[in-house]
Amino acid sequence: MNENKNLAILLGHIKTLLGDRLSLSESVRQHHGEEMTHYDVCLPDAVAFPDTTEEVSQIVKLCHKYEIPVIPYGAGTALEGHFMAIHGGITLDFNRMNRVKAIHNQDMDCTVEAGVTREQLNHEIRDTGLFFPIDPGANASLGGMAATRASGTNAVRYGTMRENVISLKAVMADGTIITTSSRAKKSAAGYDLTRLLVGSEGTLGVITEITVKLYGIPEAISAAVCPFTSLEGAVDTVVDVIQMGIPIARIELIDQELLDILNRFSDLNYPLEPTLFMEFHGSPSSVQEQAEMVEDIAKSHGGHAFQWATRPEDRKKLWQARHDGFLAVRAAFPGKDFWVTDVCVPISRLAECIEETREDIARVDITAPLVGHVGDGNFHLTIPYDKNNPEDVARIEQVNKRLVERALRMEGTSTGEHGIGLGKKKYMMLEHGPALDFMKTIKKALDPKNILNPGKIFDL
Amino acid sequence: MNENKNLAILLGHIKTLLGDRLSLSESVRQHHGEEMTHYDVCLPDAVAFPDTTEEVSQIVKLCHKYEIPVIPYGAGTALEGHFMAIHGGITLDFNRMNRVKAIHNQDMDCTVEAGVTREQLNHEIRDTGLFFPIDPGANASLGGMAATRASGTNAVRYGTMRENVISLKAVMADGTIITTSSRAKKSAAGYDLTRLLVGSEGTLGVITEITVKLYGIPEAISAAVCPFTSLEGAVDTVVDVIQMGIPIARIELIDQELLDILNRFSDLNYPLEPTLFMEFHGSPSSVQEQAEMVEDIAKSHGGHAFQWATRPEDRKKLWQARHDGFLAVRAAFPGKDFWVTDVCVPISRLAECIEETREDIARVDITAPLVGHVGDGNFHLTIPYDKNNPEDVARIEQVNKRLVERALRMEGTSTGEHGIGLGKKKYMMLEHGPALDFMKTIKKALDPKNILNPGKIFDL
Repeated sequence: MNENKNLAILLGHIKTLLGDRLSLSESVRQHHGEEMTHYDVCLPDAVAFPDTTEEVSQIVKLCHKYEIPVIPYGAGTALEGHFMAIHGGITLDFNRMNRVKAIHNQDMDCTVEAGVTREQLNHEIRDTGLFFPIDPGANASLGGMAATRASGTNAVRYGTMRENVISLKAVMADGTIITTSSRAKKSAAGYDLTRLLVGSEGTLGVITEITVKLYGIPEAISAAVCPFTSLEGAVDTVVDVIQMGIPIARIELIDQELLDILNRFSDLNYPLEPTLFMEFHGSPSSVQEQAEMVEDIAKSHGGHAFQWATRPEDRKKLWQARHDGFLAVRAAFPGKDFWVTDVCVPISRLAECIEETREDIARVDITAPLVGHVGDGNFHLTIPYDKNNPEDVARIEQVNKRLVERALRMEGTSTGEHGIGLGKKKYMMLEHGPALDFMKTIKKALDPKNILNPGKIFDL
Repeated sequence: MNENKNLAILLGHIKTLLGDRLSLSESVRQHHGEEMTHYDVCLPDAVAFPDTTEEVSQIVKLCHKYEIPVIPYGAGTALEGHFMAIHGGITLDFNRMNRVKAIHNQDMDCTVEAGVTREQLNHEIRDTGLFFPIDPGANASLGGMAATRASGTNAVRYGTMRENVISLKAVMADGTIITTSSRAKKSAAGYDLTRLLVGSEGTLGVITEITVKLYGIPEAISAAVCPFTSLEGAVDTVVDVIQMGIPIARIELIDQELLDILNRFSDLNYPLEPTLFMEFHGSPSSVQEQAEMVEDIAKSHGGHAFQWATRPEDRKKLWQARHDGFLAVRAAFPGKDFWVTDVCVPISRLAECIEETREDIARVDITAPLVGHVGDGNFHLTIPYDKNNPEDVARIEQVNKRLVERALRMEGTSTGEHGIGLGKKKYMMLEHGPALDFMKTIKKALDPKNILNPGKIFDL
């Protein structure tokens, strides 16, 4: 009752501040409470569309005063229930904060507002000779990518958001605006608030601006596809490539099952074997050298029929097919729901982890196409199922549980890039043990009223 | 009085635990309270030499109970007063915790105890084909390097401790032992406690084990020295090299003044001009390609007399001379004290920052040899002076203050790699503004009794 009264007063204040840029409409709230994956719809009380960091600060200050949750929302491409308003509250949609604020060519960095998407950024900087490499597949916003510590296909060469965020502007729980770091390439001046906020999923501060590293567009790019007689051969190839220090830009594993789906979805005809999709960046001679070395390694592990794509249109087609993986799986199983999960292990354990996972999947007789950012030891399953069938749900939950336990047993992590959100909270204790208490201590200290995306990562 | 009583009881307990491995001797305490730089000697009440993380945990638990400070101590190579026992307490010397606990060749990582030094580590892994690149010059311990977010000459290619620590084992203020992360190459599972502890200078937890990335020893290495007609030409060369994405492994700037000192100290005869020391790592063809590109760039900026060192002994001599910089400066000014400082700016501002700094130094008529990890925008001054001469002290303090203010004005940081310690606390507010409050909030939450290296980074 009191809460409802608080909410009503709060909404009045935000309305005064934003006018039409505060929406209480059912359809807008619905759009902000629905994920592509298996989470139940969960609506916020209202959706605010701020224009500036200062407006975000004013809204958060009000939410702090009235103790109402604040949930940041970027492009809506989260996969683990990150923006579900499980305790109600105000969703902050960063759609209007989509300006590229500064590009520093010489320093190879740029500062963008949280709503800028990675495709938009690369479009806006296309004439600088620079690009932003991190590519989680979806056209995510940079705010969301920072908040979830996103990575994707070319993290093997360029790193994840952890390595590529230089500085953040963020609004803390009481509305204070902070800048986490200077633009210097390195610093030893105090605590690394940048990396504390990266991956904090909106629970420690609301990210409003991001300064990221850019890279020179490679002089030469070539891509290749190589099928293997065994999954182990493909993974062993990856291990050798990494160990030899070959700076491969992408190396993605796709299993037969997913390849079959991609072939049908994108009208391709890759042979149905475990397959590596690869990309090489560098000078023409270095790209050629890398590619020759990788081809030799692949051959020694049962790789055959190396197929090159040096023309930009062929490369584009190849990676489009890879990126369409999730769409293709959805199309292949009409009417189904989809459970998406990922884990990451040291690459020495990757073959074993994938093999055990496939045995488990076969044993319980489900379909689970697999794709992996294998250079990082990270792989994903997309599992079609029926969320209204309790047996189905229970079975998938058990598969996911065993997957996580397997990854942890192999010195890995419960999620390489999707994040914890709602779905993997239950594994945080198993993964972190007593360290989890200190995460909670930090959360309580920085957000004592628990208004910042409450109920994500862990419960208090 | 109460404090003294607490201390006496505490020492009794630790004595029971460690026996001879607790020292109260004046000479041992002296050794642990004296830096190579300008800080006044400041002794701890006792020095403990733990053997295991469990012992560290027991000691910290006792210190927590009796509210006595704990100061971690590695190789004693800190430069900003990091291990000065300004509030007394127990220094934890990690000298005996010097085991390499695990080497994972396939994953290219290893786990070491905090007292292992970087030279020891590289010696112990010499047969694996792998090496640990981070090289701050001194033979620092990995615990100290993690705690101060160390970097050094080849951070331009391999990154700093921020990028190279995979996981930490640490003892928190109440004695709890935590592991901050799995060995997976990436993770999106919760807050990045690893990077929160890296650079926290012993104020948030006592690091006892470090898992770091290793790299394949490059197939080919070559080094070169190139003098320039102007300092600006040298810096512009660096900017172009970085912008073209040339993966140079080291690119160090040494000014005429320091070069003169090095020539005399190491019996060399480099021409007295601003000079770049460089190193290239890779395959033979890639090293050659890199080197040719850099030589062309250098020539276009007034670089001349490129001098190659491809034989290992010549390379060693070259880098030994560079690493002996501090020793050489000390030898050149017998009887003097030395004020060491560093800042870091975006490389687009580096030439301007160095130029203004040199003008300032000339204006106040002091000697301040300059060396820079210029690929990162980081440079150092080593200033001989007399710490008993108040005018001298005041003058150097003002130079340092203007240096820091200049770096911050140019969107840089007050320290690129030496850390805050005691010396740069006064600039934390200027650098971080309101973000500083949140650092303090974290410190208070994780160490409510303020026993972990109190008085470093900031005062509460």
